[in-house]
Amino acid sequence: MNNLFADRITDVPRSFIREILKDALQPGTISFAGGLPNRDLFPLEAISSASEKVFSGIGRDVLQYSSSEGYEPLREFISAQYAEKGLDIPVGNILITSGSQQGLDLLGKVLLNDGDGLVIEEPGYLGAIQAFALYRPEFIPVTVDENGMDCDLLAEKLQQHSPKLFYTVPNFQNPSGITYPNANREKVAALVKKTNAYFIEDNPYGDLRFSGEHQTSFKHWLPEQTVLLGSFSKTVVPGFRLGWIAAPTSLMEKLIIAKQAADLHTNQLSQCIVHQYIVDNDLNAHIREIVAAYGKQKDAMQSAIEKHFPKEVRHTNPEGGMFLWATLPEGASALKLFEIAAEKKVLFVPGDPFYINQTHKNTLRLNYSCVDQATIVEGIERLACAMQELGCL
Amino acid sequence: MNNLFADRITDVPRSFIREILKDALQPGTISFAGGLPNRDLFPLEAISSASEKVFSGIGRDVLQYSSSEGYEPLREFISAQYAEKGLDIPVGNILITSGSQQGLDLLGKVLLNDGDGLVIEEPGYLGAIQAFALYRPEFIPVTVDENGMDCDLLAEKLQQHSPKLFYTVPNFQNPSGITYPNANREKVAALVKKTNAYFIEDNPYGDLRFSGEHQTSFKHWLPEQTVLLGSFSKTVVPGFRLGWIAAPTSLMEKLIIAKQAADLHTNQLSQCIVHQYIVDNDLNAHIREIVAAYGKQKDAMQSAIEKHFPKEVRHTNPEGGMFLWATLPEGASALKLFEIAAEKKVLFVPGDPFYINQTHKNTLRLNYSCVDQATIVEGIERLACAMQELGCL
Repeated sequence: MNNLFADRITDVPRSFIREILKDALQPGTISFAGGLPNRDLFPLEAISSASEKVFSGIGRDVLQYSSSEGYEPLREFISAQYAEKGLDIPVGNILITSGSQQGLDLLGKVLLNDGDGLVIEEPGYLGAIQAFALYRPEFIPVTVDENGMDCDLLAEKLQQHSPKLFYTVPNFQNPSGITYPNANREKVAALVKKTNAYFIEDNPYGDLRFSGEHQTSFKHWLPEQTVLLGSFSKTVVPGFRLGWIAAPTSLMEKLIIAKQAADLHTNQLSQCIVHQYIVDNDLNAHIREIVAAYGKQKDAMQSAIEKHFPKEVRHTNPEGGMFLWATLPEGASALKLFEIAAEKKVLFVPGDPFYINQTHKNTLRLNYSCVDQATIVEGIERLACAMQELGCL
Repeated sequence: MNNLFADRITDVPRSFIREILKDALQPGTISFAGGLPNRDLFPLEAISSASEKVFSGIGRDVLQYSSSEGYEPLREFISAQYAEKGLDIPVGNILITSGSQQGLDLLGKVLLNDGDGLVIEEPGYLGAIQAFALYRPEFIPVTVDENGMDCDLLAEKLQQHSPKLFYTVPNFQNPSGITYPNANREKVAALVKKTNAYFIEDNPYGDLRFSGEHQTSFKHWLPEQTVLLGSFSKTVVPGFRLGWIAAPTSLMEKLIIAKQAADLHTNQLSQCIVHQYIVDNDLNAHIREIVAAYGKQKDAMQSAIEKHFPKEVRHTNPEGGMFLWATLPEGASALKLFEIAAEKKVLFVPGDPFYINQTHKNTLRLNYSCVDQATIVEGIERLACAMQELGCL
């Protein structure tokens, strides 16, 4: 069996994160390398009760083949949630997906021919880079930082390219934790409006704000172009793989065809359980609990960083979400730091995989959602020692 | 927003079956058009009990992100089931998928470049045609009937083409209900062995045999080339979207990359529930119950056909599964029959969508899994009247 692979898959490397973490997880190691929600906050009992109600209430129909668009009451809830935020998204424009990761795959499948332009944040979300890479676009990276997307660079790239798609995580971005301020959003939207392209606003962390003010969705400025991706993974549970696409009508028919071809429909039991959970419980109160915990953990990490890291190391100041991003002095390699840190039993993700074709970057992603405050302090101290040893001064 | 769609999606038509059934489902209509397992046979109480055990036993971990390969104990069960059938499939070669429909999508993604040759049965499974069509292969249709695959035609096609992939449903095929006899399998395998191609044996109905003898898996003759697809949809429940790929080691790494990009992992709760259900219950006894019911329904349909259909109408004699296939006299159109039958309040699926680029075929698919025996007799009588009216004599 020789050379049978499609070109699209031969380009994709094995998971960088998996590879580097494979041998690093020794006992006693503190990991800021994860990307998981905190399992201690999962509403296990409420989900279990919702499950019993679904079996006794809906019965056999929850076990049968179901609609490709998704469970109607759940789609109605999502539509109503958008309405509360001032966004008019009819139920017919919402497609339930097997996690928002599948939303990325379906959008790539429906929109991208080989070589089509795709504007992506740099640093950008690794899962999106992987999903889109299979459709072989030309990635057009545009820098993001705490001021949002670099509009001068974006304008320059739009003079050179005619992208079909923009991909952004404007709230508490993975990996950097940054949020685009409204003023920046308005400028980005003005540039995007001139293009013939869809604009993806991926928003898995949007509800997890622990400080600052809610910023406006791009849908407000780009009503016909914006595709919203949402997820229950960070607010309810991730193991159910439940997300959604809220897309303009122009896209929906093709997305449904792609969804049918991909897996017929999303797991029906989990859709019904999450809906029942939402009906029986105060989801906003549950989210406030998550936000309070992550906020404290983020504060613990930030204080420890400011106390222990060399002054030359910069870091973002996330107002929500699960990640903080640190930048070593120019020329320092986060990959080298990783090796030293792993010996000191503390892990993080070096920045490299979040860039298109750049290596030995001086950046790193630190996750604070899964580690308690005391352990965070200990881990940051170890990491500071590793930085001293690397010579980040 | 003009012309933004990828070429791969513009080729795919809206679902033929959905379209023709849209206005046809009037009250009092008997439908043989479905493709669903019988919901009355779903083990609702046992699944509900298994669910409670999973929440109390596994707890929070069932809600967290999980392994892309799938829940290890479930993969072990699948491996052991194969071992009972004399097939050696180590756990490491089993990937749990979001239904076996996803298996088709992942295999297309990993193997097919535009224009690559794909041998497909004619008539063939519609869901596979749709999933693979998105990767724009050259479909190479080869006729199948109650003798299995037409080996003369296959040999001729293999002289003209060098396919990368074969797709077959050798047991109780959807749509035709036919099973390849062992002698035919051996000949097909001998031809496939000379190619540099993978051979998919999709087997969702294999356990649902109500008469005749079990036939040997192609894996026996083509150990390095055969990719097995399996599913819990027809033996436990379909709404969980749980299937699997059992692939040669040469394919596994790329399939896992594609799985991660597609949806990270399959719904964890349903994997754990099905595993718990299997541990606590006698799955084989449950399958025997399904087989007994479908066998009686098939007998009722066959007797009614032999009593009422014009003698010129031929039909298959399935030994298992959910479908029976009828062939009108040459030149008669099953689409025209559909229109007359819908007026007489009986539905079926005309053969057209099961062929590559053929229309107004004289064949039709009849599903017997979801209709009770008395209703089957009544429906077949109505259909016989429609045939008289069409003039199938």
